Amino acid sequence: MFKKIQSLFIGNALKTTELASEKFSVLWGLPVLSSDAISSVAYASEEILRALIPALGIASYVPMMYIAVAITVLLGILVFSYRQTIDSYPHGGGSYIVASENIGKSAGLIAAASLTIDYVLTVAVSICAGVAAITSAFPYLLQYKVELTIVIIGIITIGNLRGMKDSSRLFGIPTYLFILAIIIMIITGIVKVLILGQAPTEVVALKEPIQDLTLVLFLKAFSSGCTALTGVEAVSDGIPNFKDPAQQNAKRVLGLLAVIVFVIFGGVSFLATMYKVSPLPDVTIIAQIAIQVFGNSSIMFFVMQATTAIILIMAANTAFADLPLLLSILARDGYVPRQFASRGKRLSFSNGIVLVAIAASFLVIFFHGETHALIPLYAVGVFLSFSLSQFGMFRKWQKSKEGKWRHKAFINGLGATVTAITCIILAVSKFHDGAWIVLICIPTLVLMMTRIKRHYNKVRDNLKIDKEPSELIIRKKITNHMIVPVQTINKSFIKCLNYALAVGDTVEVYNVKTNDEEAAKLVEKFNKLGIDAPLTIEYSRYRNVNDKLLRYIDKRQDGLKKDEMITIVMPQFVIRKWWHQILHNQTSLFLRQNILKRRNIAIVTLPYIILE
Amino acid sequence: MFKKIQSLFIGNALKTTELASEKFSVLWGLPVLSSDAISSVAYASEEILRALIPALGIASYVPMMYIAVAITVLLGILVFSYRQTIDSYPHGGGSYIVASENIGKSAGLIAAASLTIDYVLTVAVSICAGVAAITSAFPYLLQYKVELTIVIIGIITIGNLRGMKDSSRLFGIPTYLFILAIIIMIITGIVKVLILGQAPTEVVALKEPIQDLTLVLFLKAFSSGCTALTGVEAVSDGIPNFKDPAQQNAKRVLGLLAVIVFVIFGGVSFLATMYKVSPLPDVTIIAQIAIQVFGNSSIMFFVMQATTAIILIMAANTAFADLPLLLSILARDGYVPRQFASRGKRLSFSNGIVLVAIAASFLVIFFHGETHALIPLYAVGVFLSFSLSQFGMFRKWQKSKEGKWRHKAFINGLGATVTAITCIILAVSKFHDGAWIVLICIPTLVLMMTRIKRHYNKVRDNLKIDKEPSELIIRKKITNHMIVPVQTINKSFIKCLNYALAVGDTVEVYNVKTNDEEAAKLVEKFNKLGIDAPLTIEYSRYRNVNDKLLRYIDKRQDGLKKDEMITIVMPQFVIRKWWHQILHNQTSLFLRQNILKRRNIAIVTLPYIILE
Repeated sequence: MFKKIQSLFIGNALKTTELASEKFSVLWGLPVLSSDAISSVAYASEEILRALIPALGIASYVPMMYIAVAITVLLGILVFSYRQTIDSYPHGGGSYIVASENIGKSAGLIAAASLTIDYVLTVAVSICAGVAAITSAFPYLLQYKVELTIVIIGIITIGNLRGMKDSSRLFGIPTYLFILAIIIMIITGIVKVLILGQAPTEVVALKEPIQDLTLVLFLKAFSSGCTALTGVEAVSDGIPNFKDPAQQNAKRVLGLLAVIVFVIFGGVSFLATMYKVSPLPDVTIIAQIAIQVFGNSSIMFFVMQATTAIILIMAANTAFADLPLLLSILARDGYVPRQFASRGKRLSFSNGIVLVAIAASFLVIFFHGETHALIPLYAVGVFLSFSLSQFGMFRKWQKSKEGKWRHKAFINGLGATVTAITCIILAVSKFHDGAWIVLICIPTLVLMMTRIKRHYNKVRDNLKIDKEPSELIIRKKITNHMIVPVQTINKSFIKCLNYALAVGDTVEVYNVKTNDEEAAKLVEKFNKLGIDAPLTIEYSRYRNVNDKLLRYIDKRQDGLKKDEMITIVMPQFVIRKWWHQILHNQTSLFLRQNILKRRNIAIVTLPYIILE
Repeated sequence: MFKKIQSLFIGNALKTTELASEKFSVLWGLPVLSSDAISSVAYASEEILRALIPALGIASYVPMMYIAVAITVLLGILVFSYRQTIDSYPHGGGSYIVASENIGKSAGLIAAASLTIDYVLTVAVSICAGVAAITSAFPYLLQYKVELTIVIIGIITIGNLRGMKDSSRLFGIPTYLFILAIIIMIITGIVKVLILGQAPTEVVALKEPIQDLTLVLFLKAFSSGCTALTGVEAVSDGIPNFKDPAQQNAKRVLGLLAVIVFVIFGGVSFLATMYKVSPLPDVTIIAQIAIQVFGNSSIMFFVMQATTAIILIMAANTAFADLPLLLSILARDGYVPRQFASRGKRLSFSNGIVLVAIAASFLVIFFHGETHALIPLYAVGVFLSFSLSQFGMFRKWQKSKEGKWRHKAFINGLGATVTAITCIILAVSKFHDGAWIVLICIPTLVLMMTRIKRHYNKVRDNLKIDKEPSELIIRKKITNHMIVPVQTINKSFIKCLNYALAVGDTVEVYNVKTNDEEAAKLVEKFNKLGIDAPLTIEYSRYRNVNDKLLRYIDKRQDGLKKDEMITIVMPQFVIRKWWHQILHNQTSLFLRQNILKRRNIAIVTLPYIILE
C-alpha cells in the first residue's frame, strides 16, 4: 500500500548505472547555475527600498542608486575572487572544501553550517517571493499564500525525489524568458519616460524625508540589498558539470552571470527610481513597475509575473539539489548522520531532500510566508561562507608562494575582507530583525556536527580490528548455555526449546511466576512432556517478569568462564495485520533491548507465524 | 531518569500479597458506592430546567415536579430490580456478567461497550460539573475551566495509579458532608419561604411560555433528568466488598441510596421551583439556590459548593476504579487487549486507568468542558446496560422456574421494560444533540471486541499443542545453516562470525555490493584474515541491500530439506545515548521484521556495545 503510493509519486527504482550527469555548455549551463543569483534581483531592490522609504520617503531614490552601485562593485570583487577558486578547484570548490583544506576543519564546518542554513533559507525566501509574484498578478490568491507556498515546496520535493532529467533545457528557457522580459521592461520603461516623455503616475504619495541619510540607515539598506548576491557561489561548485574546457566555461558563465545581474539589478533599481515605486504589502516592486510600463492587464505584465515566479521557484529548486549534495559530502566525512550519504531508489539524496522540504516549510509557516520577514535571516550565512572561502584561497596562495601568488592573494584577500565586512554589517544591522537566529544556529550546527563526528569516530575505533588475524577467528568451540524463558507451554515454546536443544551445549527453561496456581499448572505440563532440560521457577512479588529474568541472566553470567556465553531463545509472533500487534504485550521489545546491554550474550529470535 | 519521575508520582512497587480489599460496613460502604448516584443530582435538576425553560419560561416548574416524580418512580423500580440481582449474584452482578450468562455473549458485549462509554462519560461529566461548582463560587476561574478540568483528571489519574488505601473513610466524610449541607439547604430554604414568608428574589426575569407543554418536550426534559439515576448499578457490582452478611448489607445500602437520591433530588427540584431559579451559563442551579438561601458570601454557600465539587470529583474517581476493573474482566475473557488484565507495579490496573484518563480528557477538550454539552451522550449507555441486565435477570427466572419465579420475573421484567423504554426515549430525544455518537460507538466497540476475541482465539489455536508429547521434542540434531551478512569487516562482524562457527553446521558470509571498489576491498580483507567460510557477493543495481539479502534467503530456503534451517547472525550496536541512535541506519529493524516473516528461520542477535 505505502509502496504503491510511493511508486506513484516517486517513480520506480533506478539502477546505479543510470547515474550520469549532464554536461553543460556555456549557453545552457548559465541558466541552471544562475537562477538563484538572477532571481534574487526580484526581491533585492524591493528590500533596499523597504529599508529607506520609511525614513527618507521621496528622498530614497538617490541613496538607492548608490547602494546599487556598491553592490555591483561587491559583485565585481566576488567574480574576480571566484575566478581564482575555479582555477584552483577543477572538481568544484565549495566553501566547505576550500575552507577545510586551507584554514582548518572548524572553518570548513562553519562554512558548511552557514551554507546549510542558507540553502534552506533560499528555498523559503525564493518560494515566498515566487508566490508574491503570483499573488501580485492574482490578488485573490493572497489569502492562500502560505498554503500555496507549501504546495509548491511539496511539488519541488516530489520532483527532486523523482530525480530531474534534461534539467538544463528545463531551466534554460524560463530563465532566458525572464531575462528577456525584464530587459524589455527596462528598455520600454526608459523609452516611455525619457524619450516619449510620459510622466509616470505615482502609485503611493511619498512623504517628505523625516530624517537625513545616516550611515546606519545606509548600511541597513545596503545589507538588505546584498541578498542580490546570493547564489554567486553556485558556479564554482558546478565546475565538474561543464563541458571541456570546464574551467574556462565556468569562468565564462560566472562573467556572464555578473553582467546579467548588473544589467537587471541596475535596470530595475533605475526603473524603481524613475517610476518612484514604493514597497506595498500586496504588490511587488517588479509588479508595480510592470503595471506602469505595460499596463495591469497587458500580456507582458502577466509574462513578467509568470517568468519571475518561475525563476524564483527554480532558484528554490537549485537549493533542493545543492543542499542534499553538501549533506552527502558532510555525511561521507561523518559530520552529519550517515543516512544523508546514501542515494534513494531514484538516485537522489532523498533524506537530504526531505530535510530541506521540512525545514523550509517550517520557516514558511513560522514566518507566515512573508519574504520580507525571512530576508534578515538570509545573507549573513552566505557572506560568512563567501568570506571563509575567500580567506581560504588567500591562505592557499600565501602557503604556496608560487607564480604570481602575491597578486592572487591580493584579489582573494580583498574578497575575503570585503565579504567579511559585509557579513559584520549584515549581522549587526539585521541582528534584531532575525539575524540573531542565524547567529545562534550556526554555532549550534557546528557543535552538533563535531559531536556527530566524535560519535562516529568512537564507533569506528570500537569496531576496528587491531589484533593479528590469527587471534580473531576462534575455531575452538564456545560453550553456549541456552536459556529458554517460558510463560505457558505451547507450540512457540516447543519451537524455541527444540532450537536450543539442537544448538546449545546446555539448555535450561526459565519461568517467572506471579501466582502459585499458574506455576503448578506449568510444572505439571512440563513434566508430562518429559522435557529434557531443567526448569527454574522464580517468584516475582512485584509482577515484574522482565526484571526478574534480567537479574537471573546477570546471576548466571557471574559464573561464566572464558569462552562461555549465554543465549536467550525467544519467540516472536509474526502477525499479518498491523493492528493485531497492539493486542500483544510490547514488553518483549523492552526486554530485548535490556538483554542486549549485557556482555557475552546472544538472543535467538524464532518467528512464530500466526495464521488467520 | 524516567523511572525516578515515575517513582516520585506513582510510588514504589507493591508486592502482590499487599493486594487486599477493604470490607465495607453499611455506614462506610454507602458513600463509596453511591457518590456517582448522589452526585448526579447536582446536575440533573439543572438539565431538566434547561430543556423546559426556553419553551415554557415561567411555566416550567410544574412539569419539572412531574418529571422529578416520574424519575423517582423509575428509581423505585430500579431498586426493586437490583435487589433481586444482589440476591442472585453474591460475587457481584455487573450487567456484562448478568447479560452474558442469561441472554448471550452479544448482549454481554453490548452491555460492556455501553458501560465502557458511560464510565468515560461519568468521568468527563462529573469533573466538568465539579469544576462548574468551583467556578460558580470563584468566577475568575471560569477562563481556566478546561485546564482546571484536565488538571483534576491528572490528579485523579495519579491517585488511582498509586492505588488508594482507606478509601471508605476518605469517601465517607465528604459524601456525608454533602448530604448534610444539601439537607440543611433544603430545610432552610423551605423554612425561609414557607414559614418565615420571605419572598425569593428572581434571579433572571423569566419569560411567559411560548408554547404549551408537549409530549416531546416532556420526554426530552425527562431524558435530561434521567442522568440522576446513573451510578445506581454500582452497589450490585460491589457486593464482595461488603462485610458479612454481604448481600443483606448491599441491599440496605441500595435502599438507603434510593432514599437519599429521593430526598436530595426531590428537595432540590422543589427549591428550584420555589426560588424560580433558571439555568445560567456561569452559575449552577445549586449555587443559585445556595446564594438565595444562605447569601453569596456566607460560609454555608462555600461549604455547599465545596462539598458539591468534592462529591462530583469522587464520582469521577469511582469510574476510574470501575472501568479498569471491567476492562480487566473483559481482557481475561479476551475481548480487549490483554494488557488491561495485568496489574501495574502499584497493583492498580494501570493501563485501564491511563485509558480512562486519555479518553475523558479528550472528551473534555472536545466539548470545551461543558457539562451540558456532554449530557446528551450520557445516560443512553447507562439505560441500555440497565435494560440488558434486567432482561438478563428476567430470562434467568424464566429459565429456572423455581420458587416465586413469576413474581421475580415480573419485577425484573418491569425493570427491563421501563429502562428499555427510557433508553429509547433518551436515544431519540437526544439523538441530534450527541446521542448519535454513542449509538455509533457502541456497535463499533462491540465489533472491535469480537474481532479482538477472534484474533486471540486464532493465536491460541495456533499455539495449542495438539500432537503427542513424544512427537514434539526433537532430540535429533537440526542442521543449522548460518548466514553472516557483512558490510565491512570489523570487530562486530568477527563476533558474529565466531558465534556462527561455534554453533552452526555450515557457515557462509554474505555481502551485497553497490559498487565494485568496496567489494574488492572487502574480498582482500576477507582473504587476509583467512576466514574459514565461503563468501558470497551479490550486486544490487538498485542499492537495496535488504531486498537482495531477503531474496538470497528465499533462494537458500528453497533448497532446504526437512530438519534443516537457516539462521541469520546479525550484530546490534548498543549505544548509550539515545540521540546517537539516529546516527545509525534504522533499516536493520525493517530487515529483521522481514526475515522473521519466513519459515524455518532464526535470527541471532549479538550485541556490540559501543564505549564512549
